[in-house]
Amino acid sequence: MKATGIIVEYNPFHNGHLFHLQEAKKQTQADVIIAVMSGSFLQRGEPALLPKWERAQMAVDAGVDLVIELPFHFATQQAAIFANGAIEILGALETDSIFFGSENGDANVFSSAAKLMTEQSVLFKASMRRFLDDKANSYATAWNAAFHELAPDLTLDLAQPNNILGFHYALAIAEQGEKIKIATMARQNAAYHDTDPTHHSIASATAIRTMLLANDWEKARQYVPDSTLFLLQKFRETHSFVSWDDFWPLLKYQLITAPAAQLQNIRGVSEGIENRLQQAALHAASFDEFLAAATTKRYSNSRIKRTALQILAQQTETTIPTQNYIRLLGISAIGQQYLRQVKKDIELPIVSTASKASPALIENDIRATKLYSFAPTLENQILRDFHASPYRRT
Amino acid sequence: MKATGIIVEYNPFHNGHLFHLQEAKKQTQADVIIAVMSGSFLQRGEPALLPKWERAQMAVDAGVDLVIELPFHFATQQAAIFANGAIEILGALETDSIFFGSENGDANVFSSAAKLMTEQSVLFKASMRRFLDDKANSYATAWNAAFHELAPDLTLDLAQPNNILGFHYALAIAEQGEKIKIATMARQNAAYHDTDPTHHSIASATAIRTMLLANDWEKARQYVPDSTLFLLQKFRETHSFVSWDDFWPLLKYQLITAPAAQLQNIRGVSEGIENRLQQAALHAASFDEFLAAATTKRYSNSRIKRTALQILAQQTETTIPTQNYIRLLGISAIGQQYLRQVKKDIELPIVSTASKASPALIENDIRATKLYSFAPTLENQILRDFHASPYRRT
Repeated sequence: MKATGIIVEYNPFHNGHLFHLQEAKKQTQADVIIAVMSGSFLQRGEPALLPKWERAQMAVDAGVDLVIELPFHFATQQAAIFANGAIEILGALETDSIFFGSENGDANVFSSAAKLMTEQSVLFKASMRRFLDDKANSYATAWNAAFHELAPDLTLDLAQPNNILGFHYALAIAEQGEKIKIATMARQNAAYHDTDPTHHSIASATAIRTMLLANDWEKARQYVPDSTLFLLQKFRETHSFVSWDDFWPLLKYQLITAPAAQLQNIRGVSEGIENRLQQAALHAASFDEFLAAATTKRYSNSRIKRTALQILAQQTETTIPTQNYIRLLGISAIGQQYLRQVKKDIELPIVSTASKASPALIENDIRATKLYSFAPTLENQILRDFHASPYRRT
Repeated sequence: MKATGIIVEYNPFHNGHLFHLQEAKKQTQADVIIAVMSGSFLQRGEPALLPKWERAQMAVDAGVDLVIELPFHFATQQAAIFANGAIEILGALETDSIFFGSENGDANVFSSAAKLMTEQSVLFKASMRRFLDDKANSYATAWNAAFHELAPDLTLDLAQPNNILGFHYALAIAEQGEKIKIATMARQNAAYHDTDPTHHSIASATAIRTMLLANDWEKARQYVPDSTLFLLQKFRETHSFVSWDDFWPLLKYQLITAPAAQLQNIRGVSEGIENRLQQAALHAASFDEFLAAATTKRYSNSRIKRTALQILAQQTETTIPTQNYIRLLGISAIGQQYLRQVKKDIELPIVSTASKASPALIENDIRATKLYSFAPTLENQILRDFHASPYRRT
């Protein structure tokens, strides 16, 4: 059996994801689809709209064979770290290929760029530092300029969010020495940030979240599979959807009371960004106000949100686990067959039920779940995450 | 002019305090009454029912001449530290005497006990350690037993809360080499913890808070002076009274997400008490539930609340200011006259308006105010505490 890996957030699952899934199977000729999925908190520094358990079930019901949780300390970080964690998991699961959407759409370009970068990393880092010396450059701008200097002939626009992720997948594969093949398709229709869907059945996750938070089910239903719609509605009967607003008082409290030295220990806090965040928090009455006050050209909206999330979750260097692991959230019949096939060769610990896992392994992710449970109606997520078995579809 | 000092919380001011005030003046023959008062948070590890500004005005309106704020890092600590900070302020203000209520009622006993203790401190500490080795002993019990061993002939029951405080005032005076005379009166009527007032005009602050939180103004009005009642009612028109319940979600969040090493750095956290607090927080739905789950014979209710408050306010050893200061909250015409008289000799910095003070001096108390402002309707306290002038009654 041959597996292809996809790296996802499914916040929530929608028709664009379904199309991506079908293309992955078609283009890679894989028998098995493995999705590495963020848990309660996402790469852009946001809480997920609904728990990972519902999102894993959406994935399996739509055709994914294995859903693995990407641990918090990878899932909420910039592309390089995010990609490293996900590729390590896919490599351990003996994935034959990965498949991702990108603005570029040419797999060879990603491989070449990654090869060039591993061979020229010293040159690249020096170039990066030079561009970052100009305080007007954001990290992404500097990165792009440095890359263009190194490879003027490669047409890979790294200002595009999916190109960046794809590039880091390729780079992580090269750096980790994995044999995973790269497959990509050009993204069509809704760009990630679009809030006004124009396509008749595909809209961005951002647009769909806006509909769901506004309870506009009539509109939302055309953009998600029926199985997803069912799970969203079932969840919504007894719970609220989650957003940063639910955590705003806690973030504000943390920013206002934490001693400066403590904030400086948080991952991603550097260059005095903590002062900027503290000032913004003191005068803001909502998370949106805070974000507007803190964002600058140098500190992008994503950088601020990601840093705010690390502060909220009190992530210091000492809380970073030393060991990656494979946390099963959902599995199909084919997924079970595949897991039996590769199980003996998997070099990462496999966790089916958190309560049976080594506490040190899962501690940081359990803390993330405890934090997530502060959102209204989600108190039960702590016990659920500790005791639940993966969703099985047979 | 001759001043006597009192050390108070006024949470809120009531008829018992008024009586204490009148006795202080009568028994010490003082022209001036100086009250050192806790700010937003109190010695038993609780937020004050209403802001220090209203409480200072109550005091001045009832006859206090100077109200000075006891900084947070003294005000929220056990008796020894609490007393040290307050006596340092009263000493700096050239106070002739202090006057306090006690269960014992004999000033000579307090002086003798303090003298004995400064002379025999090594012996006492060894004895203390021995009693604390028995895990069934609370800190107070061990203290009492060690003291009795040292001075079997002194009839000073240090299991009584006001005796403990009075003893530490006397001890601080002896240790700091101050020339402050000691005066005390035996406490009558409502013991501190009584919730059922039996006297016709005097009830404990605890009982009065219960009435006020229940909006039982008819009952409360007989136990507080009219000037206090007026201020309480005026405050209540646009604000809520404050209680631990207002801070419970923040405490729970902090206990659940803070790394263990960070909690261990908090003042008062030792012997693994952080694990007990974390476990209790995880399963509690309210502050009362938390308190009930965390309290044991060894860890008293007060110890738990005080530790919880230090955790909530993120008080580490590095946040403790190195310098005490005199923060004026309220002043009468006589108080102004007195201040002019002693001003040139005062060795502590005087702060009339926080915005004009050295930031390092007031930083920790401003943080405490920011924390207090998380209580509903109190957002305005941050600006107020930064810019307000002392309440003046001319």
